[in-house]
Amino acid sequence: MATRATPSRGYSATKEQLIARLRRIEGQVRGVQKMVDEDRYCIDVVTQISAIEGALEKVALGLLDEHARHCVMTAEDGTREERTEELVSAFGRLLGRS
Amino acid sequence: MATRATPSRGYSATKEQLIARLRRIEGQVRGVQKMVDEDRYCIDVVTQISAIEGALEKVALGLLDEHARHCVMTAEDGTREERTEELVSAFGRLLGRS
Amino acid sequence: MATRATPSRGYSATKEQLIARLRRIEGQVRGVQKMVDEDRYCIDVVTQISAIEGALEKVALGLLDEHARHCVMTAEDGTREERTEELVSAFGRLLGRS
Amino acid sequence: MATRATPSRGYSATKEQLIARLRRIEGQVRGVQKMVDEDRYCIDVVTQISAIEGALEKVALGLLDEHARHCVMTAEDGTREERTEELVSAFGRLLGRS
Repeated sequence: MATRATPSRGYSATKEQLIARLRRIEGQVRGVQKMVDEDRYCIDVVTQISAIEGALEKVALGLLDEHARHCVMTAEDGTREERTEELVSAFGRLLGRS
Repeated sequence: MATRATPSRGYSATKEQLIARLRRIEGQVRGVQKMVDEDRYCIDVVTQISAIEGALEKVALGLLDEHARHCVMTAEDGTREERTEELVSAFGRLLGRS
Repeated sequence: MATRATPSRGYSATKEQLIARLRRIEGQVRGVQKMVDEDRYCIDVVTQISAIEGALEKVALGLLDEHARHCVMTAEDGTREERTEELVSAFGRLLGRS
Repeated sequence: MATRATPSRGYSATKEQLIARLRRIEGQVRGVQKMVDEDRYCIDVVTQISAIEGALEKVALGLLDEHARHCVMTAEDGTREERTEELVSAFGRLLGRS
């Protein structure tokens, strides 16, 4: 994954941005632990978990965007087919259907 | 989408296979209408809806597999970036995060 | 599932509304078959499948809302626990994690 | 959320179990940061993110199971309807459709 100075549109993100998002997600998971520990209202905890999932999926899509651009597209003819299959299977797992 | 005589591994499928699956899905949706109409036990109806979603996602992944192979990979350098973005965004919508 | 004259807020819906939505979904699935048959642009087909999934989930949530209100809440003490478990498991299957 | 000595079947879990799972998830998120930082193979990172999502959803379903049992079912008649709606909406957000 290349570090690019100028992130572009869509899901693409630099390595630094992805790590920064993952740090934020780590903090959110710690926040949920605290909420559960303090017996906070369950619906609020679940809403927070949904937000974490959205953030994780954004990171995953960012990684796959980068991967599609740099590893799949530029793969030699012999491995491209295999890489595409790998990519689509990774999406399948994200969907929870593997 | 090319029609290939020999479907391969993973999510890939021929056009005929995709249409056959969609016909089956159409029948399943009709079945759910009947279940609702006959006041069938709600949990069974929802279980059937989950099965339909799984089948639809398999079709979507089959289409995206084909697309990645034939439209994205073989795109000219100028449009490849754009096509990749489109592909990842399509996955994002499947995840329900757009 | 009771038929109510006045549907209320959130996901709740009358039996008639649910059946009408399922008919629309059936038509959408047929539309996707046609799109695949006509070799329409794959990304557009997948976008349409995402829309169908969203519509199916709305139906499922409507059914579960009705079920929670009428079958789980009013269950006798002895069966309520079991019904709750059934409800949460049905949600788990919708999430694609079972 | 009551702490029970004996967790039961399905998605239900004690408070301690939920916190233990969230700590494990926090560690997994830190692991993903490390993977991204070390430029590990993207597909492996995404597979790990999918596993975290599955674990988070299991926690969410555990919380909602507990909530349905203790807060919704035992709610007074006046608030039960509202609580059900809240529960189903929380599930909708988990599905990424809100």
